[in-house]
Amino acid sequence: MLAKDLKRKEDIETPRGKLGVLIPGIGGAVATTFMAGVEAVRRGLAEPIGSLTQMGTIRLGKRDEYRTPRIKDFVPLASPDDLVFAGWDIYEANGYEAALFAKVLRREHLEPIRDFLETVQPMKAVFDRRFVKNLDGNHVKSGSSLRDLTEAVKEDIAQFKQAHGIDRCVMIWCGSTEVYLKPEEPHQSLDAFLKAVQNNDPRISPSMIYALAALESGIPYINGAPNLTVDIPAMVTLAKEKKVPIAGKDFKTGQTLMKTILAPGLKARMLGLEGWYSTNILGNRDGLVLDDKDSFKTKEESKLSVLEYILQPQLYPSLYKNYYHKVTINYYPPRGDNKEGWDCIDIFGWMGYPMQIKVDFQCRDSILAAPLCLDLVLFADLAQRIGMYGIQEWLSFYFKSPMHREGLYPEHDLFIQLMKLKNTLRYFMGEEQITHFGLDYYMNDLS
Amino acid sequence: MLAKDLKRKEDIETPRGKLGVLIPGIGGAVATTFMAGVEAVRRGLAEPIGSLTQMGTIRLGKRDEYRTPRIKDFVPLASPDDLVFAGWDIYEANGYEAALFAKVLRREHLEPIRDFLETVQPMKAVFDRRFVKNLDGNHVKSGSSLRDLTEAVKEDIAQFKQAHGIDRCVMIWCGSTEVYLKPEEPHQSLDAFLKAVQNNDPRISPSMIYALAALESGIPYINGAPNLTVDIPAMVTLAKEKKVPIAGKDFKTGQTLMKTILAPGLKARMLGLEGWYSTNILGNRDGLVLDDKDSFKTKEESKLSVLEYILQPQLYPSLYKNYYHKVTINYYPPRGDNKEGWDCIDIFGWMGYPMQIKVDFQCRDSILAAPLCLDLVLFADLAQRIGMYGIQEWLSFYFKSPMHREGLYPEHDLFIQLMKLKNTLRYFMGEEQITHFGLDYYMNDLS
Amino acid sequence: MLAKDLKRKEDIETPRGKLGVLIPGIGGAVATTFMAGVEAVRRGLAEPIGSLTQMGTIRLGKRDEYRTPRIKDFVPLASPDDLVFAGWDIYEANGYEAALFAKVLRREHLEPIRDFLETVQPMKAVFDRRFVKNLDGNHVKSGSSLRDLTEAVKEDIAQFKQAHGIDRCVMIWCGSTEVYLKPEEPHQSLDAFLKAVQNNDPRISPSMIYALAALESGIPYINGAPNLTVDIPAMVTLAKEKKVPIAGKDFKTGQTLMKTILAPGLKARMLGLEGWYSTNILGNRDGLVLDDKDSFKTKEESKLSVLEYILQPQLYPSLYKNYYHKVTINYYPPRGDNKEGWDCIDIFGWMGYPMQIKVDFQCRDSILAAPLCLDLVLFADLAQRIGMYGIQEWLSFYFKSPMHREGLYPEHDLFIQLMKLKNTLRYFMGEEQITHFGLDYYMNDLS
Amino acid sequence: MLAKDLKRKEDIETPRGKLGVLIPGIGGAVATTFMAGVEAVRRGLAEPIGSLTQMGTIRLGKRDEYRTPRIKDFVPLASPDDLVFAGWDIYEANGYEAALFAKVLRREHLEPIRDFLETVQPMKAVFDRRFVKNLDGNHVKSGSSLRDLTEAVKEDIAQFKQAHGIDRCVMIWCGSTEVYLKPEEPHQSLDAFLKAVQNNDPRISPSMIYALAALESGIPYINGAPNLTVDIPAMVTLAKEKKVPIAGKDFKTGQTLMKTILAPGLKARMLGLEGWYSTNILGNRDGLVLDDKDSFKTKEESKLSVLEYILQPQLYPSLYKNYYHKVTINYYPPRGDNKEGWDCIDIFGWMGYPMQIKVDFQCRDSILAAPLCLDLVLFADLAQRIGMYGIQEWLSFYFKSPMHREGLYPEHDLFIQLMKLKNTLRYFMGEEQITHFGLDYYMNDLS
Repeated sequence: MLAKDLKRKEDIETPRGKLGVLIPGIGGAVATTFMAGVEAVRRGLAEPIGSLTQMGTIRLGKRDEYRTPRIKDFVPLASPDDLVFAGWDIYEANGYEAALFAKVLRREHLEPIRDFLETVQPMKAVFDRRFVKNLDGNHVKSGSSLRDLTEAVKEDIAQFKQAHGIDRCVMIWCGSTEVYLKPEEPHQSLDAFLKAVQNNDPRISPSMIYALAALESGIPYINGAPNLTVDIPAMVTLAKEKKVPIAGKDFKTGQTLMKTILAPGLKARMLGLEGWYSTNILGNRDGLVLDDKDSFKTKEESKLSVLEYILQPQLYPSLYKNYYHKVTINYYPPRGDNKEGWDCIDIFGWMGYPMQIKVDFQCRDSILAAPLCLDLVLFADLAQRIGMYGIQEWLSFYFKSPMHREGLYPEHDLFIQLMKLKNTLRYFMGEEQITHFGLDYYMNDLS
Repeated sequence: MLAKDLKRKEDIETPRGKLGVLIPGIGGAVATTFMAGVEAVRRGLAEPIGSLTQMGTIRLGKRDEYRTPRIKDFVPLASPDDLVFAGWDIYEANGYEAALFAKVLRREHLEPIRDFLETVQPMKAVFDRRFVKNLDGNHVKSGSSLRDLTEAVKEDIAQFKQAHGIDRCVMIWCGSTEVYLKPEEPHQSLDAFLKAVQNNDPRISPSMIYALAALESGIPYINGAPNLTVDIPAMVTLAKEKKVPIAGKDFKTGQTLMKTILAPGLKARMLGLEGWYSTNILGNRDGLVLDDKDSFKTKEESKLSVLEYILQPQLYPSLYKNYYHKVTINYYPPRGDNKEGWDCIDIFGWMGYPMQIKVDFQCRDSILAAPLCLDLVLFADLAQRIGMYGIQEWLSFYFKSPMHREGLYPEHDLFIQLMKLKNTLRYFMGEEQITHFGLDYYMNDLS
Repeated sequence: MLAKDLKRKEDIETPRGKLGVLIPGIGGAVATTFMAGVEAVRRGLAEPIGSLTQMGTIRLGKRDEYRTPRIKDFVPLASPDDLVFAGWDIYEANGYEAALFAKVLRREHLEPIRDFLETVQPMKAVFDRRFVKNLDGNHVKSGSSLRDLTEAVKEDIAQFKQAHGIDRCVMIWCGSTEVYLKPEEPHQSLDAFLKAVQNNDPRISPSMIYALAALESGIPYINGAPNLTVDIPAMVTLAKEKKVPIAGKDFKTGQTLMKTILAPGLKARMLGLEGWYSTNILGNRDGLVLDDKDSFKTKEESKLSVLEYILQPQLYPSLYKNYYHKVTINYYPPRGDNKEGWDCIDIFGWMGYPMQIKVDFQCRDSILAAPLCLDLVLFADLAQRIGMYGIQEWLSFYFKSPMHREGLYPEHDLFIQLMKLKNTLRYFMGEEQITHFGLDYYMNDLS
Repeated sequence: MLAKDLKRKEDIETPRGKLGVLIPGIGGAVATTFMAGVEAVRRGLAEPIGSLTQMGTIRLGKRDEYRTPRIKDFVPLASPDDLVFAGWDIYEANGYEAALFAKVLRREHLEPIRDFLETVQPMKAVFDRRFVKNLDGNHVKSGSSLRDLTEAVKEDIAQFKQAHGIDRCVMIWCGSTEVYLKPEEPHQSLDAFLKAVQNNDPRISPSMIYALAALESGIPYINGAPNLTVDIPAMVTLAKEKKVPIAGKDFKTGQTLMKTILAPGLKARMLGLEGWYSTNILGNRDGLVLDDKDSFKTKEESKLSVLEYILQPQLYPSLYKNYYHKVTINYYPPRGDNKEGWDCIDIFGWMGYPMQIKVDFQCRDSILAAPLCLDLVLFADLAQRIGMYGIQEWLSFYFKSPMHREGLYPEHDLFIQLMKLKNTLRYFMGEEQITHFGLDYYMNDLS
């Protein structure tokens, strides 16, 4: 298929029927908050705040045309009404029980949708404690081999689709951060990978089993954690072969979100950076998992590279070459899901004079992540219907470590990411790219 | 002249000779810091940190071409070496004494350039205490009428040009914030304005006299304060007639800079805003002036509108319609020039859950403003050489209240402002506009 | 009566029967939170957190005797079970409606005690809008003269006592801050004061009418606001004549509480102070009232003097003579009752080197004030039973502006205040004073 | 000797002659800042800010007597003029070079006392890298055994005393934090300890060698680090036998100082604690040492226990039993010696409602520590002259982990510590103890 064969404009069909949302980690804080919110929106109890697809607008044409439709009215996306949820978890609790346990949403917001949440019953999970040391659960599949486990997941999916009469699905990982894995030989090619699965190679993590099942079933895979999973050549090859989109990795929320807002601002003004100290406290299951140093290493890699790419020390050595960047995460139960990040940023300006910025972000992890899930599911489905497959770099906006083609650098600047996303949508729909060049408004003045 | 007659690419000549920098308020903290820094850079004692023209790069072509020249190597700007300074002040102190008084730069950084700073001797100022209540100075012109004062300033300029053999000048206001003036009848047309000057109308402020002198002398005028000055139809008309660029208003530093970084970030993610409380403490002369409620009103207008324009409540009523925005400035002598801003931002996300961001920005007012002076002087000179005149909206990046054509809204988002500025430079030099659309990098993948 | 005639030890009777709590401003946030909490404690739904009388212990004897009874078990106080509430308000809402309106306590905590709160029906208030400009209510007494109003309040009290068979009462002001009043001639002597009441002198505020009614009824008066009220010679004389305790003024909560914790710490270490900038944001009715500059002036006086007395610049001129102290309060509706205070403290140490402390106190105004109400009511009743009357300086612990005898300075240091309170209790009960001198523990070592 | 034989009042002689100050770690940031400041004070260039002995006053008698002499005028202390410095360091740099390296004091403050600092030449240190992993120096003694090293230090001391004609000395440890040592068998008795020294037992750290040399030379030892050193039964016995005072451990500066100010304040008001998260960033040599997890463990022990003792969970289980306390220290070079601590404190009040306090303390480690050195040297010398020996609990005010008699708990509350110190001084000088009981001022009122 040629790029020109991508469906565009009127060729993109309005989606029909249900869209299955398959969630590994369906009993966690992010997944239950995501599902509860979608249902609340469907029942008119809440607005989909934080969701670009639902709330966002897109400017078309010139500034003084005032054409700014909502994105959902501009691009033919599935509707939240179409979503059907299913997933896996290592705990048996249903969606309501799990949401109560997560303590993100208050009881008064859960009661009105309790009936819906109680219908969400997790399937048994693929789990290997070597990869998540601080958790343990017994709602797990008892497969004798990785290939068997993969087939079991595929069978789960097939049954789900049949039971609900569903054609299209998207899988989105909302599970925990696995321990750090370096890309090694079994990840480098599809052949090696499939052989490693066959041989129960210890370098194949549970998340890879889910992703393998998804791709082999022709279903897009979105990676909400910093796990390697599909960010390896083997999986990219498989995605292209199966013509499915993949996207990741690690939902950009909290402190890293803040970093990709502030760092472009400092750089815009050519203010130098001497140091950036970041500490996080959180008390949810994610905090517990990250208290394990191996899981933290995976996260740390994801968090540290952000500044390097935004600040481009190779271009600005006197401003950004030698800054000291430190990120810590501490498990702090009093905070619960209300993650708090404190950043202490040492900058310097004219004549080298130092200045400081302190940011205390009292955020909520799952509240920030949930709308990203919604957007990503809808956009991944769109991508598949248009004929886009493999890495979806235009969705970098949503990730701490955006996947990207070899030979390109990832784009971390939130504002460039948004521009990229919106100009991609404009391209899909045959609208002119926006450049913010504005001299034309003044041409008459100059004539 | 038609827009197509703008000089572009190789038609834009490399500037030759000296460039005069004319500064009302030359003895203040911003002006002395600006001049001291420029001289330190010229002597190799400092780098021009914070200056986009000197430190900044501009990406040309595709991401994988890696073409990113410095802006000063891309566009034919004057060099800091070419600048010659002159100005007016209500205090008689020379540049060195004034810099010591301002307490921005430490003595160890002033001593090596003391000889240079001592040569900067302010001319007598146009001053009217009705417009700046908390200051008083006696180094002022004793003109009997506004027209006489205007002519005296023009005469100052003429003598300065002759004395230094200078052709090109730029005037940049680094003086205090004047009391709040509403645009009234004498400001609406050039005729009315000139008549008002003739009649010594009390609605003509000292800054307008300087600007009038500049424009009548064919010299671009840059407005670093929130004063009305050239942001009135009369002055825009005059600028076009005289074919000179004007730009303003109010250097964007400190808390407002931070606001125009953070607010676009919140909006990018469709996070709602419930309230934004901003307090500032500063102890310099600017703080003293703003302790007068009439001067503060001018500043407040400049500061408050920023959020309205960025957040577009008309497009996002459920997110941004009813937020509570409060800005206070407090004179606090212990801080000196080290302005400190504290922002307390109440946002809400998915299902309406509240979150908070606190930002403590321990900045330095003049350190942030000085490089803006340098950039604006160089860009205003460029604009004039290219044939751009009237309002320079592409320089919005530098201002709290960007001037703009009637019928357009001002652009406050720092990232859109930067994009606009850089795409304008690309346009001048015949380079392709950057859109951050990146699908083309993946076209081969899809074929 | 001689001091030696104060009842002490076993002569202090255990209180019997009900204790009436009379509250001007009974429909406000503080009063409703106070009453709701007392009832929740009585029903075993909450612990009286923040209450020194209920939760606090008192060390008796030597450190290694480990005798530390609860204060309520040590001193014969009335019990929360004995309290009966009544009061006045300018709004007609009952206790439940008023608590909902105040938005301090969540509905889930109000429902279980709704029946109790609904029985609290305010009596018509004495109100004069000249003293509280930003409020207006219509549930007010229509007396034709100040003396009539006083008698009406006394009549209210008498009826309340009779209806509930109550002997002992305490009146505690939980109403708003009145506009600033300077002590003038009518406040200087009891005669002048009574004459001023007779003549409807405009310098007699509503709070004085309540206090007059209380004192004339032999009932202790506690002043929770910075209003002058009983802090005038006239009232002190009346209190002594009627043998009733009075205490005030202005509950010490939030930022001032923090100040009286931190400032003694800085002084303990002989760290100098260059400046202290305090800003407050709050969105409750109190915030609205203080948005009026005349009411704020009353509050400001109360807040500013704290540092002067703690730091003793007359003793430490090189450390504390020239600091800059600024306090602002801003009405900020998003915060509701959750008052937030930000302090920026500039200190200096060894060789004059500067350091900074920033404190962000995200507190809750009424949550901090409610337990003070409980303690003060119980202690004031105790004082009266013991035979203490006039100013109760030993209760300084609870107030921003502790009342004190002429010729003495007020004690603001929270730790000295606590020591004073506890040593007073020890004195009442015939226990040895604690000095924290500890050399005696080491005497054997030295022998 | 009996306690009654302590010298008191006029029996305490005014000290005559020089006082030797012996400093292990004399080239570090604390020691150089201490010495530089003392010299600056002696030359009239600075005031001894932060020093209780020099700046502090002490109230004598009743509040209305206004008797508040300076402590140095009340108690016969040595004068800063009497101090002569000597010490040991693993680096050879003289006092001036070391002070420059430490980057605490600015060059402009060092130059005027450069001549003095250059005379401070460190003696070779006792060093064992097993105890301080992140440092290495080559200016070390080459003793073949621990006993030899001890004798070498004693010889250093003897020579120093002779060279300067000095009778009285105090040794004060300003060196690094050693790795964590548990008290074990060789520390439990003097015999076992001396035998262990003889046998070069690996559980004897370098700081113990210095302390042994001091005590055997009859010289008081002050422990500014959290090292075990003299806080073991063996050393306490030796101190008593030799009749010398010992005090420690770990100078209370920065975040822990702040904790012992704030925690007593929260407890005074019976506010509950849910969690206390503390993070520290610092970039000096201390930060580097503490980046080693074994050294950090020693520090952590010292920092964590503070809250336990102040809050007394055994007395207040519902308020203080289950709080979560976390302390982290991060090496962050941009901060240099300017240690910064961020505390996030989660408290709860009336009806369990949560509140938060955030404290950002931008302090300077050595600036806070230096005046403590001065006070401790002067007080330790006083103690010895009075006849106090063994543990000096009355100096708890200065330490993070105050040493105390077995069977007593340490006192951490800064305000109780100060009271204890001042009442001890009053005792020495025969003045009445202060209790802050103030009812007596009102006795006339009551008569």
